[in-house]
Amino acid sequence: MEKKLAKWGFKNQKEQTLTIRDTLERLKENLKETEQRPLVHLGHGDPSPYPSFRTTPVAEQALLSALHSAQFNGYAPGAGLSAARRAVAEYLCEDLPYKLSEEDVFLTAGANHAIEVVLTVLARPGANILLPRPGYPLYEARAAFSNLEVRHFDLLPERGWEVDLDAVEALADDNTIAMVVINPGNPCGNVFTFEHMQKIVEMAQRIGTLLIADEVYNHLVFGCNKFVPMGSLGSVTPVLTLGTISKRWLIPGWRCGWIAVTDPNRILNKTGIADCIESYLNITADPATLIQGAVPEILGKSTKSFFSKTNDTLREVADTCYAKLTEIPSLICPHKPEGAMSTMVKINLQLLEGMEDDMDFALKLASEESVLVLPGSVLGLKNWLRLSFAVELAALKDGLERLKAFCSRHSKK
Amino acid sequence: MEKKLAKWGFKNQKEQTLTIRDTLERLKENLKETEQRPLVHLGHGDPSPYPSFRTTPVAEQALLSALHSAQFNGYAPGAGLSAARRAVAEYLCEDLPYKLSEEDVFLTAGANHAIEVVLTVLARPGANILLPRPGYPLYEARAAFSNLEVRHFDLLPERGWEVDLDAVEALADDNTIAMVVINPGNPCGNVFTFEHMQKIVEMAQRIGTLLIADEVYNHLVFGCNKFVPMGSLGSVTPVLTLGTISKRWLIPGWRCGWIAVTDPNRILNKTGIADCIESYLNITADPATLIQGAVPEILGKSTKSFFSKTNDTLREVADTCYAKLTEIPSLICPHKPEGAMSTMVKINLQLLEGMEDDMDFALKLASEESVLVLPGSVLGLKNWLRLSFAVELAALKDGLERLKAFCSRHSKK
Repeated sequence: MEKKLAKWGFKNQKEQTLTIRDTLERLKENLKETEQRPLVHLGHGDPSPYPSFRTTPVAEQALLSALHSAQFNGYAPGAGLSAARRAVAEYLCEDLPYKLSEEDVFLTAGANHAIEVVLTVLARPGANILLPRPGYPLYEARAAFSNLEVRHFDLLPERGWEVDLDAVEALADDNTIAMVVINPGNPCGNVFTFEHMQKIVEMAQRIGTLLIADEVYNHLVFGCNKFVPMGSLGSVTPVLTLGTISKRWLIPGWRCGWIAVTDPNRILNKTGIADCIESYLNITADPATLIQGAVPEILGKSTKSFFSKTNDTLREVADTCYAKLTEIPSLICPHKPEGAMSTMVKINLQLLEGMEDDMDFALKLASEESVLVLPGSVLGLKNWLRLSFAVELAALKDGLERLKAFCSRHSKK
Repeated sequence: MEKKLAKWGFKNQKEQTLTIRDTLERLKENLKETEQRPLVHLGHGDPSPYPSFRTTPVAEQALLSALHSAQFNGYAPGAGLSAARRAVAEYLCEDLPYKLSEEDVFLTAGANHAIEVVLTVLARPGANILLPRPGYPLYEARAAFSNLEVRHFDLLPERGWEVDLDAVEALADDNTIAMVVINPGNPCGNVFTFEHMQKIVEMAQRIGTLLIADEVYNHLVFGCNKFVPMGSLGSVTPVLTLGTISKRWLIPGWRCGWIAVTDPNRILNKTGIADCIESYLNITADPATLIQGAVPEILGKSTKSFFSKTNDTLREVADTCYAKLTEIPSLICPHKPEGAMSTMVKINLQLLEGMEDDMDFALKLASEESVLVLPGSVLGLKNWLRLSFAVELAALKDGLERLKAFCSRHSKK
């Protein structure tokens, strides 16, 4: 039996598809057991353990009501409960120049699942997809899994992490099925101007490619640029918008996201893509019906003051993070974060002694200072780091002080 | 753009992968709007809307505690929270002659998701999988999606829906990667004897195939045969056991299931299959962390009286269903249900006037009587019906009376 099974070559794929989770696990294995100081985790986008980032009582109350009603213990349709889909459509409409209906919204078990569904449905033999570098590595992992060819375009640090539009135009060909745009920026913490977004959709139109707008961090902005959904330009180029309650409501573990067809010309419907998504949802995971049952209240009743408090808190930690980084000569943060929950920092290895690369840096930092940061190579940017600043302010300050001491200790004399 | 996208041939796959959901949707479209009587839904395995099948307060309280703790709003590891995995391992151990650890358990977003994960991981070019007929069509749909060849073996109605063991042996070859066994039986409502299960694992050993034991309905038995987990024979043949809190706790919409490696000889670990499952879980959907947080209490604190009340209720509706079916000459129920939530009924078309097949029967029944039953062809058994009896007793009686009147009205004079 063992021999027979062995012939199929089951192998752990971890080395091939390096995910954020795998990398953080590896870093955690490098923590010293004798360390007395608390771990400072600047490595992942999950602020929910910190008191400053507790979700609103509205969300908790909505789930309580759903639970007590006993109306949401059963199965939901593959595309999600009507009332929840309608609530998401109405929520998204607030920022769009046209109406969405519940038929335009498909619920998923979180935004990661939305990525899984969209890339699975779009994958075709010979097709390629354009992904940003740095980006969010689940796109690469899911594309590899579906044999969808990946072509990377750069985000430009010197231009506030805008898309390198010329590069996109050079990469695209007749087999380019989609281009992914993440705004507010994950991992860069930038927010696109409306003008830049216009250029993106016009270019997508020229190359005949639909857009996947990853707006998981929608409305989490605290700089000058306002959040504008890509779907508001959906009449230029059809857009599949990915969203979630995870980030704005600070409940990533509730696993409820969506795919919205923000495409007023109905091209995605006419070409069958919307139908394929709905059909595929019948044979994949579902978000918990209980959470779906809470969605209308969560989206409808949350207060502006909750949202502005979150953004104020994020602004404070982001500013603190940026200011502290300017004190560290061997690290360069090219762009002050204006949105989302992380920023990208370049390591000047020439100023450091015996530091091989970003992975070496992160492993040593974990071991020596009990501080976790994500090596940029996981996101396609070698010798950079991703710092997640959405942690408690005091912990952030502590972690950054340790990072500063670490860099100072390892700097060339 | 439209033309360019059209070349990829996005098409709704509904006709190719007929799922239970799609079929029930089609039947619902056939309901008469003018119908005054309430709809009786004998078409799906979701008893949760009925007062007799309300979940235990233990489950509700466990979720409340998880919510109030605010400890489960964040991300969980891909394989699930340690405490929840440990709780499932302990729960399953109660019926096994050996220990399981948390490393043997992988949490999924429901048992459907467990099927998705296992079939995706096992799929290999050239491999085939043995599936029961009648069965649960998600297996066929996921196998088709992964290009895993399906070979069907029959369950034998005249032998209490036991596996046709000779047929399995004739079907299997060197490329057979797994065989699926569903016990308690979905859709047949049978429960295998220990002796029959021994024969299954011995045959699986002979043909060198691992077993996928779908035990979604574990412990939901109310006849003579006791529920025995296939994993208790895992030393003969390695078993991947699929389970869920959905059925026994009557909360299918909470979307929390598991894959357990019930394989004391560790063959699935040695050949890398267990690692592949864990690795794949990092790039697929997760069960809500909140639900995972509630799992230890749900599994640990539920009372025997809750379980026996559910089984008593199921026995009553199953007996009522079987007794009523014996009054209808054109329908034959070959085996009195002893477990799970449904039974298979053969239509004697020769006794009916102008009835084409099972789909025609179900469509007319929906239209004329507002009663939904699932056509057996969806499950691989043409001109049979699946009747789900896990509904409120009064509704069940009402629905069966209408079914009887329908058959009588359409019977040949």
